[in-house]
Order: sequence, then C-alpha cells, then structure tokens
Amino acid sequence: MELILMVENHGNLFIIPSSIEQLENVPFLLEEQKKLLYNIKYFIVENEKVSRKTIKELNLKTKLQSIMLFKHNDILSNLDKYFIPIYNGEDMGLLSDSGTPCIADPGSKIVEYAHLKNIKIQPLVGPSSIILSLMASGFNGQNFKFHGYIPKNSHDKENYIKKMMRSIQKERETQIFIETPYRNQKLLNDLVKILDKKIRLCLAINLTSSKERIICDSIENWAHKKINVDKQLCIFLIN
Amino acid sequence: MELILMVENHGNLFIIPSSIEQLENVPFLLEEQKKLLYNIKYFIVENEKVSRKTIKELNLKTKLQSIMLFKHNDILSNLDKYFIPIYNGEDMGLLSDSGTPCIADPGSKIVEYAHLKNIKIQPLVGPSSIILSLMASGFNGQNFKFHGYIPKNSHDKENYIKKMMRSIQKERETQIFIETPYRNQKLLNDLVKILDKKIRLCLAINLTSSKERIICDSIENWAHKKINVDKQLCIFLIN
Repeated sequence: MELILMVENHGNLFIIPSSIEQLENVPFLLEEQKKLLYNIKYFIVENEKVSRKTIKELNLKTKLQSIMLFKHNDILSNLDKYFIPIYNGEDMGLLSDSGTPCIADPGSKIVEYAHLKNIKIQPLVGPSSIILSLMASGFNGQNFKFHGYIPKNSHDKENYIKKMMRSIQKERETQIFIETPYRNQKLLNDLVKILDKKIRLCLAINLTSSKERIICDSIENWAHKKINVDKQLCIFLIN
Repeated sequence: MELILMVENHGNLFIIPSSIEQLENVPFLLEEQKKLLYNIKYFIVENEKVSRKTIKELNLKTKLQSIMLFKHNDILSNLDKYFIPIYNGEDMGLLSDSGTPCIADPGSKIVEYAHLKNIKIQPLVGPSSIILSLMASGFNGQNFKFHGYIPKNSHDKENYIKKMMRSIQKERETQIFIETPYRNQKLLNDLVKILDKKIRLCLAINLTSSKERIICDSIENWAHKKINVDKQLCIFLIN
C-alpha cells in the first residue's frame, strides 16, 4: 500500500526547457511533448519578453491567459499566488530564459513549493548545456560535479581551481563550471596558468547553435591555442 | 587567428541519446535532429539488440551497413578500428543502451579518441535522467554532484552517505546517485536510517514512462511513507 497523496482536481506543473540559443531559431522540444502543452493558458516565467517568444514556438491551441513573473528572491511563503490556476484545475508551465529551468537557472523554489502542495510535477526533455558538453567532452561521465559560477576574486579563484584539480587527481571526477560571457577569456587564461599541464580542458562554445564548437585538449596544448571565447556562451570542463 | 585543425574530409561523430524506458515506445529525439541522422550507415554501440531497436526508430533513409560493438575495457590505442568509416568520409552514430551515452553510461573513451583524431563531435539533445530528476526535485540546481553508484559494503556506504550529507550542510550542494534496481529498496531504507531528519530526499522513479513518479520529502516524513522502489529505475537525490 502506498500513501502518496496527489490532489486529483489540481492541474499539473510542467517544467519546460527552452532553446539555449535564443538568437537563432533552434528547436528545443519533442513533438510529443509539445502536444502535452497545447492547452496550457498560464505560465510562470523568469522573464516576460523571452518567454513570450518561447511560448509562441509552442503553438498553443488555446488563448494564453496569463504570464506570471516570479522573483528570484521570493520566499516560500510568498509563492502561493502563482498557483491559483493550478488550484482551479488548470495545468501550468514553468519556463526560464534559456535551457533547463532550475539547473544553473532559477525555478527550483517554485518546484519546491509545488511538492509541498502535492502538485504533480512533469519535467520535459530538452537541451541542457551541462549534459551536451559532458557527452561531447570524452571526459569521465560516471561521476562529475557542476559548480555554477566559481569565485571572481583572484585569490579565491586560484584556490578554487586548485581544489577542483585535487578532486580530479583523487577521484577522476569531471569538474564543470561557467562564467559570465565577458569574463570567459580571463578565466581561460587563468586555467592555463594555474592547472597542471596534464589536466585536460574542454570548452563547449555556443552549443546547439550554428556556431557550436567543442574543443578538448591538455592544458599543455591549450597554452599554444589561440581561441577567442570572449562574449560567447561557454561551458568549461576539466578532467 | 584560430589554430583548430578539423580534418575536412572526415565524417562527423553524432552522439545520440536513446529512450530511458526501453519497454514502452517513448519518443526521445527532436525531429530536426532525426533528419541529421537519416543518412548514417554506421553505428558504434554498447549492445547490438537494444541498438537495433533504437536505430529502427530513427527511420534511416539509407541501408544500415554496420553496427560496431565497443568493449567497455577497450584501451585508447585499440579504438582506431571503429573509425574507419569516418576516415572514409562517412558520418557515424554513437549509441548506448538507455538515455545519454557517456553519462552514467559507457562511450566516453570513443569520444576521447575522436578528439585525439580531430573528428568533429555533435552531441544531440535527448533524455537525461539526471537532469530530469534534478529539474523536478525542487532542489538546488546551481551546484550539484553526480556520484554514479555509491559503495555496496555497509560500512563504506554509511561513511559515504555521511560524507554526502556534510557536502549538503556545507555548500547546499545537491547529491545525485543511483543503485542497481534490485538494491533500491535497501538503499532507501539505509538513507532513512542514516540521514538527518531535516535532509530532503527525492526519488525520481521510471522517468519518461507512463509509470513516472517524483516524490520529494524530508527524511522525517519518508520514515512514514510506504513506497516500493524495488526493481524500478530510480534516481536518488538528497539536499
């Protein structure tokens, strides 16, 4: 006997990935999943303008009724207001600006609250730059760590990079991280300076777009490469 | 000036995710990606029988010429034989049995070798149970660690679980891991016994299938749940 309580007359919360590359028209959802979304009239989103574009690509069958913007710093007890359509039996969609909501992107507080209220969550398959870059790196994918942004301050950054290197040497664990695009070149230079020559670095640049490039090599060889990663969407992996 | 050498007359290596749930006919690839694969005649795969089924769903336009099985314990210097079609200008596909190749699944040695030979890698968007479960958990997705399988031995396992708990308490880092399906129930019981009452545990069960269930709660509340996870595909997340 199982004691899960799902409130039957509530709607579902669909977690909807969007395109990683918002400038090009890159497809991002399975046709079969799009069909699940045709009747959704209410969305909880990170940014209205970006989300209107994504929602347009979903080709909704019914008229969009409302887009609710959630705030990154909303506390749990303030979230109830977003769920009124769900309480009235309507399905809702959760969208962030690029790629997968809740992962290196906001949204997890909304999902946490939905669990508290026994609302059914349905995550949809879509592009994740973390997964795409790890698949394409050839690095260890049996255990890995995603750090998000690493420290900005030079001293803390150097210590952090050295700590990641020790996890590679100890457990072969792949380390994955990101940086604000305009600081990518600086981070690349720092990595080449700080890491041991045998450590391998993979950059996955502009994933899913026509300008996608995946470059993996030892730090020793990176020192001679002249790759410009400034202001480009970039995932860093070391192993 | 950029000094990347891609051998122009070589084919590309497509890394192709497959269905997580092989028993049901669950769609797993974007239509636009399927079109990129129509002309592929050569595949490097983990298991022939499973892959024949996946390849059938790709609806290849040309006749399949060859399926090459790679061995998990192949060493880098033995891998050249798989790439002969690519050297002859043919695109190839890399497939594992379920979900994403190279991530909690074999394949990364093949990709590592392809990088050494300057072969262009194209990862395709598809279902990843790690990403789907993390999106749907409501847990911290800004930094997380995937462990693969944790130790089997009782003593080592207990220490490992306690170490994961410290990473949560120190950095709020979500911990993600898996177990052989027939040991899932034992692991669930151990987690409830070992973890602090306030730690939250999420189980994502049978993802993408009609039997998908995502259950997140505190250890305190899990102690009273009667959920049977034996012999089911299950991702464990704690936060």
